[in-house]
Amino acid sequence: MTAGFSFTIHAKDGAARAGELSTPHGPVATPAFMPVGTAATVKAMLPETVRETGADIILGNTYHLMLRPGAEQIAALGGLHAFMNWAGPILTDSGGYQVMSLAKLRKMSEQGVTFQSHIDGSTHELTPERSIEIQCLLGADIQMVFDECTPYPCEKAQAKSSMELSMRWAERSRTAFAQHGKPGQALFGIVQGGVHGGLREASARALLDLGFDGYAIGGLAVGEGQELMLQTLDATVPFLPEDRPRYLMGVGTPEDLILSVARGVDMFDCVMPTRSGRHGQAFTWNGKVNLRNARHAGDPRPLDATSTCPAARDYSRAYLHHLVKSQEILGAMLVSWANVHFYQDLMGRMRAAIRDGCFEDFARETLARLNGSGQDED
Amino acid sequence: MTAGFSFTIHAKDGAARAGELSTPHGPVATPAFMPVGTAATVKAMLPETVRETGADIILGNTYHLMLRPGAEQIAALGGLHAFMNWAGPILTDSGGYQVMSLAKLRKMSEQGVTFQSHIDGSTHELTPERSIEIQCLLGADIQMVFDECTPYPCEKAQAKSSMELSMRWAERSRTAFAQHGKPGQALFGIVQGGVHGGLREASARALLDLGFDGYAIGGLAVGEGQELMLQTLDATVPFLPEDRPRYLMGVGTPEDLILSVARGVDMFDCVMPTRSGRHGQAFTWNGKVNLRNARHAGDPRPLDATSTCPAARDYSRAYLHHLVKSQEILGAMLVSWANVHFYQDLMGRMRAAIRDGCFEDFARETLARLNGSGQDED
Repeated sequence: MTAGFSFTIHAKDGAARAGELSTPHGPVATPAFMPVGTAATVKAMLPETVRETGADIILGNTYHLMLRPGAEQIAALGGLHAFMNWAGPILTDSGGYQVMSLAKLRKMSEQGVTFQSHIDGSTHELTPERSIEIQCLLGADIQMVFDECTPYPCEKAQAKSSMELSMRWAERSRTAFAQHGKPGQALFGIVQGGVHGGLREASARALLDLGFDGYAIGGLAVGEGQELMLQTLDATVPFLPEDRPRYLMGVGTPEDLILSVARGVDMFDCVMPTRSGRHGQAFTWNGKVNLRNARHAGDPRPLDATSTCPAARDYSRAYLHHLVKSQEILGAMLVSWANVHFYQDLMGRMRAAIRDGCFEDFARETLARLNGSGQDED
Repeated sequence: MTAGFSFTIHAKDGAARAGELSTPHGPVATPAFMPVGTAATVKAMLPETVRETGADIILGNTYHLMLRPGAEQIAALGGLHAFMNWAGPILTDSGGYQVMSLAKLRKMSEQGVTFQSHIDGSTHELTPERSIEIQCLLGADIQMVFDECTPYPCEKAQAKSSMELSMRWAERSRTAFAQHGKPGQALFGIVQGGVHGGLREASARALLDLGFDGYAIGGLAVGEGQELMLQTLDATVPFLPEDRPRYLMGVGTPEDLILSVARGVDMFDCVMPTRSGRHGQAFTWNGKVNLRNARHAGDPRPLDATSTCPAARDYSRAYLHHLVKSQEILGAMLVSWANVHFYQDLMGRMRAAIRDGCFEDFARETLARLNGSGQDED
């Protein structure tokens, strides 16, 4: 739809695909994990460190940035890339999810949402038109339609009317993007419909009729659990076009990523590696390590002696335990870094396994290693 | 006194000296500023970033490390250098100052101090012998005698008896170091005596009689103000030997450093660059910049476009303002980094000016620039 944005699939293995997105700020190898840069920073990480972990693209949050420092302010400073010193591609969400989860005194209408800022209580409005305008002011390479993130649990009738509202908003978003979007920038639609297969199919068909550069699966990872999430994925992906990128929003654990790539998902974002990092929870190839646990106090081993990531390789668990217990900023810095590196390493290995035609073996062995060994699990 | 530790003066200009310390973990160019690594981390900075700013040596705190994670724990993990992944020289203080400023329920005696931890209320004892034992367990290249940091203000009689106690503790520290210190490690004495010239002279003479590898000036930067501090320095330095390093503890602002180097001081430590960094206060060649100030919100200029430090060069004041206002960890990371780099840059330029025989001009011009222009002062 948009000139300049493209998606090429280089290899397939079962339903899993390895490919590349082309964007105005460079290529993105898929399947891709996007670290979350909520307030114009991937928390506790330098942008060059994020890049060095292997991340091609990061995510920015429309809701947070419109409230502080403001989209017009960022535009006046040259856009989000310049503002946060990140030269690579950026995807922005539409603000729909955060309005639901963070804002106070929400008032929904056909037009959009008015709400109060969680920071200072000031009143704001988000509509499909304003969301796209903000994402264009930020200069996002990939933009998302404004949607209502259907809560979970949710009656089917409510999920249906919510999804149908999102589809009307998707069309308005598309019209606004056609006016404001720059060449090469892309707009993704978002499939809604809760955990109801029929609604997901209807939503996918509605979006396909409009036509988007990519298709996201929204409204998951909101409490439904992994099994229902995968079921919903199975009920959705078959209705998405083969030749467009598929983005599972807000997901997830390393296990979630593997199981979703196996189902044909190409893109992910999640706060998990950085949020866990700030709380002393590390991801390793032998499972999660809770560095707050006293049993690490005297452990001279690093998180992963074989890692190419300095944070995982050059500091003992004893030292990380000490930093976490002492609430030292360096603890958040190192564990976030190690986690984002681990996530990128996982994506890289999945891409290689797809290209090598051994994704099923890789997935089985890795899931066993992450869950089974228990060696490092708390 | 100790084999392997040495101090060489390469150039003098007025009272200012440029030289080099030789330590078991490498050389230290003087005048030197030591970033403070209180709890085995220079706060919000990676050790390699600290090194890249030009810091040859960092300071560790006996008081903090004995309480958490414990000196024996660090020794079991290979010492403080290995624990915190810092390959360069480390100086440790003796714990005397922090016991006074942080600990609860202090009880002083001729023997030493018993106190309660500010972390968990547990009871501990510090004596000259235990302080040196801890510093040896940490593996510090340069260790400090255990002293009582005389408060300010303080009657002369109290300052005298406090100083005399510190001198007796210095002798006990020296005896303990002779037993526990490793070849190449150094022990510095600490001149006390409040702001009383006569007491400072007596303290210096007492330490010289014992003989130390270097001489620190303690008990300053405790509220007496710059003028009294410089007066006390003028009343102390003449009694210190030319051929030994002089270390002014806990000092200070960039202006303090320049005025003290002019008086023959070789070493400094201070939390100012990192503490200010965490509070959004930046040091630049045009004075201090309070990044919390709203007037930076739209300022696209970096802190210093001519700096070789990425933190000072590659991020706008507007972005730093946003990070500081949003309490993002990256704000603390970047401003701390820029500040430590500025301090090291200042020391490097002072060393060069001394070698070039133009220190007086450098000092005059730099003091005017730091204080006078007002361009960036808040």
